[in-house]
Amino acid sequence: MINKICIIGVGLIGGSLAKALKKEKFVKTVIGFSRNEENLKIAKKLKVIDDYSLNIEEALKGANIVLIATPVNSFKNIFELIKPHLTQEMIISDVGSTKGSIFKVAKQVFNCVPTNFIGAHPIAGKEKNSVVESEETLFKNKRVIITPIENSDKKALEIVKNMWQQTGALIETMSIAKHDEVLAMTSHLPHILAYALVDDFIENHPQAFKWTAGGFKDFSRIASSNPVMWRDICLNNSTEIIKQVEQYKKTLDKLVLLIKNNEKEALEKTFSNAKAQRDNHFNKQ
Amino acid sequence: MINKICIIGVGLIGGSLAKALKKEKFVKTVIGFSRNEENLKIAKKLKVIDDYSLNIEEALKGANIVLIATPVNSFKNIFELIKPHLTQEMIISDVGSTKGSIFKVAKQVFNCVPTNFIGAHPIAGKEKNSVVESEETLFKNKRVIITPIENSDKKALEIVKNMWQQTGALIETMSIAKHDEVLAMTSHLPHILAYALVDDFIENHPQAFKWTAGGFKDFSRIASSNPVMWRDICLNNSTEIIKQVEQYKKTLDKLVLLIKNNEKEALEKTFSNAKAQRDNHFNKQ
Repeated sequence: MINKICIIGVGLIGGSLAKALKKEKFVKTVIGFSRNEENLKIAKKLKVIDDYSLNIEEALKGANIVLIATPVNSFKNIFELIKPHLTQEMIISDVGSTKGSIFKVAKQVFNCVPTNFIGAHPIAGKEKNSVVESEETLFKNKRVIITPIENSDKKALEIVKNMWQQTGALIETMSIAKHDEVLAMTSHLPHILAYALVDDFIENHPQAFKWTAGGFKDFSRIASSNPVMWRDICLNNSTEIIKQVEQYKKTLDKLVLLIKNNEKEALEKTFSNAKAQRDNHFNKQ
Repeated sequence: MINKICIIGVGLIGGSLAKALKKEKFVKTVIGFSRNEENLKIAKKLKVIDDYSLNIEEALKGANIVLIATPVNSFKNIFELIKPHLTQEMIISDVGSTKGSIFKVAKQVFNCVPTNFIGAHPIAGKEKNSVVESEETLFKNKRVIITPIENSDKKALEIVKNMWQQTGALIETMSIAKHDEVLAMTSHLPHILAYALVDDFIENHPQAFKWTAGGFKDFSRIASSNPVMWRDICLNNSTEIIKQVEQYKKTLDKLVLLIKNNEKEALEKTFSNAKAQRDNHFNKQ
């Protein structure tokens, strides 16, 4: 059993992890740290964390694992904040969505990336991301991608893997580059498409919202995600995201051409294939 | 109380309307007609319809209202099929998603559009559209757009309005052109974007499906819709749809430019606005 975990940023992800780890008795004490005391008070009241501190030295003291669960753009500040208080034994991990940028700032702050910094990214979330929404089963059967690097400490890697296994997640390891490419496809692209649709409505036909129905509602749900978190993701994985949007636009153009040319059969085949692949994938879950 | 309604095509929409109208005692007898006897047998067994006929003359005999609830491309055949058996008193209505094309084929078949043909379109649906999925409350608080034309019979219009009011729907009237423009924005565009995303995955990164999560699942739900129905919608409202896709691509390009140029503030503002507008709209419901 791990003695103490310090979670920096106790929102949906940090909170859900804390709940799951407490339930599985993986950790004795979970301490929260954040600049937002109100949020920490709520987290403590909800018993998501055992206690909190607004002083980073105190929050980290004796911690076996430091988990960073804040928006990606805050990582530079947080690395600088924790740097003076890290010990050789302390494992650092995170749940950030853009691994390339996180490792880049780690290198800037620490000169070389600490061997016991093990990046991880749980592929789970909701558009509501406050600690109030946290659930101990949020990661059950969800994938968690771990991105070790060449000099990663083997023992630290095993502990981070083990930590996520406690939550019922399916663990995979992947290179940082591969992670950022995959996430740009599976998560960042759909978010941008959804934000663009709502933005298109605001700009060009705000009066049309009232005629939308369930299809539009579900399609655009992810446009109700946290704007700061998504701003950070976009700016920190911009190259991969732009590549994916350009690829998507080509597919969209192909579809428009089928419509323009009245290609009945090809259009039906495209829609049938899409339905079959999607049904096949999500019905297996 | 209406004596008899004949529903041509007893799927999710036709079936849900039949259930609601029976429950509200708006109609005494609902007769189904279709080329698919298996489906009609199921509908009868589920008590969605009172009976069915595979003979159109018999199905229409004594009907006060004929309701066409089949994919849009079938309307020409159906108009030709029912034409010899229509009486002066029989009201014709439909639930089709592309009003311009429906009125165009009505003109072709009937020479001039019958004054008692009142087009209607309930903005409700699910990606599963068989009669098994039908619900008597499907239209409750949903909008139904009715598209009368200049020479529409006032009494027929009132009866069709009254029929939809029974289901708990919110009735609006609109011109055919306005309807097709609004639906291209609110429904056809998101469907095409969702189909394009799944198609993009199939073509360019089929292995990435396994790393998708809830966001992708909800975003792409409408890509599991009926391929024939959506092929027909795309081909029958192509001009408006292409216009909307081109407009959307401009908005998407604008967003990509913000990412490319690292426009932190503008990006966050765009995402915040999108979230606020969407939350505001859907939380009111």
